[in-house]
Amino acid sequence: MQLIDGKAIAAEIKKEIAKEIEEIVNAGGKTPHLAAILVGHDGGSETYVAHKVKACGECGFKSTLIRFEDDITEEELLNEVERLNNDDDVDGFIVQLPLPKHISEQRVIEAIDYKKDVDGFHPINVGRMSIGLPCFVSATPAGIIELLKRYNIDTQGKSCVVLGRSNIVGKPVATLMMQKGNPGNATVTVCHSRSENLKEICKGADIIIAALGSPEFVTADMVKDGAVIVDVGTTRVPSDKTKSGFKLTGDVKFDEVADKCSYITPVPGGVGPMTIVSLMKNTLLAGKKCIY
Amino acid sequence: MQLIDGKAIAAEIKKEIAKEIEEIVNAGGKTPHLAAILVGHDGGSETYVAHKVKACGECGFKSTLIRFEDDITEEELLNEVERLNNDDDVDGFIVQLPLPKHISEQRVIEAIDYKKDVDGFHPINVGRMSIGLPCFVSATPAGIIELLKRYNIDTQGKSCVVLGRSNIVGKPVATLMMQKGNPGNATVTVCHSRSENLKEICKGADIIIAALGSPEFVTADMVKDGAVIVDVGTTRVPSDKTKSGFKLTGDVKFDEVADKCSYITPVPGGVGPMTIVSLMKNTLLAGKKCIY
Repeated sequence: MQLIDGKAIAAEIKKEIAKEIEEIVNAGGKTPHLAAILVGHDGGSETYVAHKVKACGECGFKSTLIRFEDDITEEELLNEVERLNNDDDVDGFIVQLPLPKHISEQRVIEAIDYKKDVDGFHPINVGRMSIGLPCFVSATPAGIIELLKRYNIDTQGKSCVVLGRSNIVGKPVATLMMQKGNPGNATVTVCHSRSENLKEICKGADIIIAALGSPEFVTADMVKDGAVIVDVGTTRVPSDKTKSGFKLTGDVKFDEVADKCSYITPVPGGVGPMTIVSLMKNTLLAGKKCIY
Repeated sequence: MQLIDGKAIAAEIKKEIAKEIEEIVNAGGKTPHLAAILVGHDGGSETYVAHKVKACGECGFKSTLIRFEDDITEEELLNEVERLNNDDDVDGFIVQLPLPKHISEQRVIEAIDYKKDVDGFHPINVGRMSIGLPCFVSATPAGIIELLKRYNIDTQGKSCVVLGRSNIVGKPVATLMMQKGNPGNATVTVCHSRSENLKEICKGADIIIAALGSPEFVTADMVKDGAVIVDVGTTRVPSDKTKSGFKLTGDVKFDEVADKCSYITPVPGGVGPMTIVSLMKNTLLAGKKCIY
């Protein structure tokens, strides 16, 4: 079994980006600028945004964090989105989700100029990805593909089971895995809460991408010997063994599954760091105006 | 085995639409207006467009057919698209594909105002469909879902194999089949030219949607007893038995597969008529401004 070290790959990619930025800036080019809007004080969101800001520093990007309390109105938030759409210095920006219940996340996502939508959530980017056109691919699916690529894992003709049909992971990663290319060209099955014979289906898979958000859902009896396991789950499970009082737990029962796999991503340190680094890659593309 | 009679269902839906249009017009509402641009004289395209214009008549829509010779430049075509985007009387329009090689189909599709894109090919409509938002769903996938609905075929939790990963059939119908809803909630596997064990995968399927464009590809040994078969193939195969000199042939070897199925769509008379009627439904939605 080989551990897929997302943390190490992410560090490598950040160095590659930092080197490219140094060259761009030395040649008189513009430093890419990522802005992030954070509403409220959700613990998870605070952590994610802090990691994103830190990653910007490591890549040599300029970053701006814009904070609002969670009583901000939808209109005020939409005005801020509009302001960032029109700010020529900002190459890309994100609105950290989830948002307070009184704000429509979909309306906010659609208000973002798709040319600055480095999260890849705008329908134009989603549609272009599905069609196979240049676009901002959302960060987690892009990170998974990058991991498979860097570990030279052959996906062509292989059976790939995606657990979960969410808009931000399951559906887009399924699309990327079935597209022409390598990684890609896999025979993809998407399973979800309504699927029958889930165990059997997983057992037949060469590659399992688990994105249910259901801690330790994938057990050893569901995994074929030699399978590749990508664990996207990051549920905060209460724990008395950590300072924070919780433990990030994946969708895969790592201890019993790991021995059966050819490759497996750990949680934390697998897909998570790649998600942030994919956002950095999108910001680089936005800064260089590579896509739009 | 029950034959899924697309022709009859399509006739039924056109009557439903005509009735609704009569009511709308009697109440002083606007007659929906579909425009179609046809470039050149490709035999298949001529037939499809003629069927669409005829269907408009049956539904009580206004239709306009705009013809160009195949030496039209891309710029001239884009100008015509722009003119239709701005023509308030035109509720929706299509550009019949394929286009001559010197014209970028993708550029033309993206030039169409997505609010008038009743073919559902614009990235915004593709993305919105993927996310599950109101949109113009492209005609063939929508027609397939409608057939399953009208025949009360339960898809929930069932295994559905989609053969083909095209942008206009395979990928969108896979998305619709996995979405929440009924039809929907299926466990969907997308197979394509690079898939291994294709025969075995089909053999396990409760529902097979064949959209490869490979005549009589699906044979009896690939089909489980009692499976539902949807045949999207419409390849023109030379024939000395028809006046036209060709015979429309599906992706399924109908004669040997039919006996094993619970339901099957014939070619012609299955998915084909539903594709045109789905375009009519989108035109109705466009006329009523239901989506945008």
